[in-house]
Amino acid sequence: MVETENLNPIANEAFPVARIRKATRLLQERLGTKVRLSQAERYRASFDGMKLAFQPGAVVRPRTEADIAAVLELANRHRVPVTVRGAGSSLTGSAAPVFGGWILDLSAWKKIIIDAEMGLARAQAGATVEAVQEAAAEAGWYYPPDPSSKKYCTIGGTIACNAGGMRGGRYGVTRDYVLALRGFLPTGERVQWGADVKKYACGFNLRDLWIGSEGMLGVVTEATLRLIPRPERRATLVGAFADEAAALGAVRRLLGRRILPSILEFLDRYSVRCAERASGKRLFAEKPGRPLMLVEVEGSAAEVEAQLAVVRPWLAAEAMACREAADPAEAEVLWSVRRGCSGAMFALGDAKLNEDIVVPMHHYETLAAFLETLRKSSRLPIATFGHAADGNFHVNIMYHRDNPAECARAEKAVFRLMKKVAALGGAISGEHGIGLAKTPFLRLARSEAEIGAMRAVKRALDPNGILNPGKLFDPLPVWERRPVRERLPWDHA
Amino acid sequence: MVETENLNPIANEAFPVARIRKATRLLQERLGTKVRLSQAERYRASFDGMKLAFQPGAVVRPRTEADIAAVLELANRHRVPVTVRGAGSSLTGSAAPVFGGWILDLSAWKKIIIDAEMGLARAQAGATVEAVQEAAAEAGWYYPPDPSSKKYCTIGGTIACNAGGMRGGRYGVTRDYVLALRGFLPTGERVQWGADVKKYACGFNLRDLWIGSEGMLGVVTEATLRLIPRPERRATLVGAFADEAAALGAVRRLLGRRILPSILEFLDRYSVRCAERASGKRLFAEKPGRPLMLVEVEGSAAEVEAQLAVVRPWLAAEAMACREAADPAEAEVLWSVRRGCSGAMFALGDAKLNEDIVVPMHHYETLAAFLETLRKSSRLPIATFGHAADGNFHVNIMYHRDNPAECARAEKAVFRLMKKVAALGGAISGEHGIGLAKTPFLRLARSEAEIGAMRAVKRALDPNGILNPGKLFDPLPVWERRPVRERLPWDHA
Repeated sequence: MVETENLNPIANEAFPVARIRKATRLLQERLGTKVRLSQAERYRASFDGMKLAFQPGAVVRPRTEADIAAVLELANRHRVPVTVRGAGSSLTGSAAPVFGGWILDLSAWKKIIIDAEMGLARAQAGATVEAVQEAAAEAGWYYPPDPSSKKYCTIGGTIACNAGGMRGGRYGVTRDYVLALRGFLPTGERVQWGADVKKYACGFNLRDLWIGSEGMLGVVTEATLRLIPRPERRATLVGAFADEAAALGAVRRLLGRRILPSILEFLDRYSVRCAERASGKRLFAEKPGRPLMLVEVEGSAAEVEAQLAVVRPWLAAEAMACREAADPAEAEVLWSVRRGCSGAMFALGDAKLNEDIVVPMHHYETLAAFLETLRKSSRLPIATFGHAADGNFHVNIMYHRDNPAECARAEKAVFRLMKKVAALGGAISGEHGIGLAKTPFLRLARSEAEIGAMRAVKRALDPNGILNPGKLFDPLPVWERRPVRERLPWDHA
Repeated sequence: MVETENLNPIANEAFPVARIRKATRLLQERLGTKVRLSQAERYRASFDGMKLAFQPGAVVRPRTEADIAAVLELANRHRVPVTVRGAGSSLTGSAAPVFGGWILDLSAWKKIIIDAEMGLARAQAGATVEAVQEAAAEAGWYYPPDPSSKKYCTIGGTIACNAGGMRGGRYGVTRDYVLALRGFLPTGERVQWGADVKKYACGFNLRDLWIGSEGMLGVVTEATLRLIPRPERRATLVGAFADEAAALGAVRRLLGRRILPSILEFLDRYSVRCAERASGKRLFAEKPGRPLMLVEVEGSAAEVEAQLAVVRPWLAAEAMACREAADPAEAEVLWSVRRGCSGAMFALGDAKLNEDIVVPMHHYETLAAFLETLRKSSRLPIATFGHAADGNFHVNIMYHRDNPAECARAEKAVFRLMKKVAALGGAISGEHGIGLAKTPFLRLARSEAEIGAMRAVKRALDPNGILNPGKLFDPLPVWERRPVRERLPWDHA
């Protein structure tokens, strides 16, 4: 469905349209029908989960490594922006071709090979995280990174933004599981960083530099992922707390006992109320609308029992009410509340600033108090949920796009939030990355020397600046651009 | 003890001696007695664990961050090589100032702060790994990276080479525990990469680029390290095997059952014989001189029992003889064999090429067969031990330095080994890094495009090339240079 809104990329003198058109004709001569020019295909590739659209000049669907080399070699010679795309489920606009150019669509590159003996997965960039998890599980192994879009998001995309998920406090993030990357420099030269082994100390670590670089330093075609033994058992509990500070303080008291549950998922009262209103269901009928903490422990049967011996009395003592799922079906009911809360927030506004901040555990209660202040000063609904085991909270500022006063207050509120996060020594993004969405805040969190070093690395590895230009460094007031009205498969109900 | 051997650094036109002398006078004006010029101090800083000596022009012992900034700012302006030094326990020459210049000695920067609630350690660069482990253990936490020099080696040094150790198969390497680095660009600008939180997706990951960059991209003054819950229990077992292939094949069969012991330490028959001869003791009197595998499992009491339920019958079935340590004192006896083997090898020659290669598990038996061939073709004693859980084996080629024929055969043998490792898809270094020692082999393992990208990164972040020049990229035939005859604290007995 092509919208009537303006889909033009941002004009940039480094990438004149005429030159890109000429290069696109050369690309067609080289790759034929692998180069798609239809309005419909270009439209579909013009936006990601953030829904800000910038129409590319062409969408390329390479079939071979030689195709990818050809695309890059031509793009580098003629200075054409190249934006690599998997599922396009990024929430930051990092997959949107802001200056036009070519989309390099790797979604068909989805082969997965499990090495059951070594506990490794070799996955092409377009394989979904869920497909890797399932293939690993079949072989008795476990791939822990678990972004909520895992059914759709690709290994390549999760490497590009160093995706995390709910289990990061125990298991870490994507970076912690990548042993090797295979791919291309912007020149079209093939490279491999790391190897299919667990130790590697052979020169500068461009593997980890590429991870989280949002497609701006190189093109990943395949990754070797480390797997861990599959947990035998899993237990899920939930507690309702008097208020946010009580819930978050309880987390500190649990982790202080050297227990690392696989999940400690926090929902503040505003998130819970949204989910309860939308679903018509209440987890704790006698304590409706209270902040919740969903707890999952997993491991060997013995390990789960040992953890539960601490977690059960902890939750009983800390929560106003609590329960433990008797079986996976009951656990699924508990998780449905969490899954419902994000979408349910659209009852509070038609626009959302979703910030995936991280704060150190010492400041959890400070954050809770600050968010209350922010709700008052902004006079906007602000609902927060997130991963309390690693401090990665999703703060959702809701407003109405057609209400200029609300827009102004939302903008002000998000800046106040980001300044607070920086002051607390946290991170303005824990797992989404910067993309376009967080470019206005980068300088709140990083110094000129740090940004200068990053820019120097960008110039060194991509001298012509063709890989995903316009991201990370250049502040774009994203709230001024209208998103497309599209429903994407991973949008919450 | 100053030796009479030639300690002069290698002359390099980019770093003329006269200019360095002039800059050293300016540095003295700025930092006074923190700049040490005595022959004795310069000698002590002229070599590391590899014992190739290159005398620096000065040794600087900064007391404040401003001191470090001043050193770098002056060095960058006057193009003086700066080599950062902790304990100097590197085995690759990476801490030796090959072109002279200044040693920036951070060994006095050893403050450690444990955050018992969050499970973090903030450690200055000069803190030893053992001190961090002990401080963590006192607070009920665990810092797993465990290089054998841990009593001496510093956090800064282990970050510089991304050190591993015996427990890498289960716990990974230094990189897996670093959340944030604080330090300086070569310009003297202060930077921080990452934060004291477990998720961070705010721009290019220069934190991990610095890790393993052997002091060539920036100066680390402090790191925030992630800790994990301290294992409650530990069990140690040892088995003697018919031959190397049997021992290494057994590892594959254990890991294939999704068990990850904390240690699977392999000693081939040559290592075992050296240790037995040197100590006069035998672990298995009835099976002397057989390859050994030392196995350690650790975790909660329940976890250890669950692992032992698999490990005990596995070892009984696979080994010719086996035993389990009844207590820590008996475990210590088992480990003393492992610790003795490296030093005992000097009965076989006065010079050692110690290569910390890594090979994928599929090729363990291939490696064992290849090493037998290599012993025959080189007519040199080659003893191998190492970390079978992650494929990181230490291959020790012994020869006599004054025997030119042996030297030539050793050189030939090490090249054959490295070519084999590259052909097997492994790593020419797993945990020591390249430094000087492995510069002759880098091109066997990395392509021109890969090395070109690394060099571009170096130029971008250190345009004047002052940080630890002469390492990594420029092949130095290290066997042609005579080491100093010094006994260092971490040298094995």
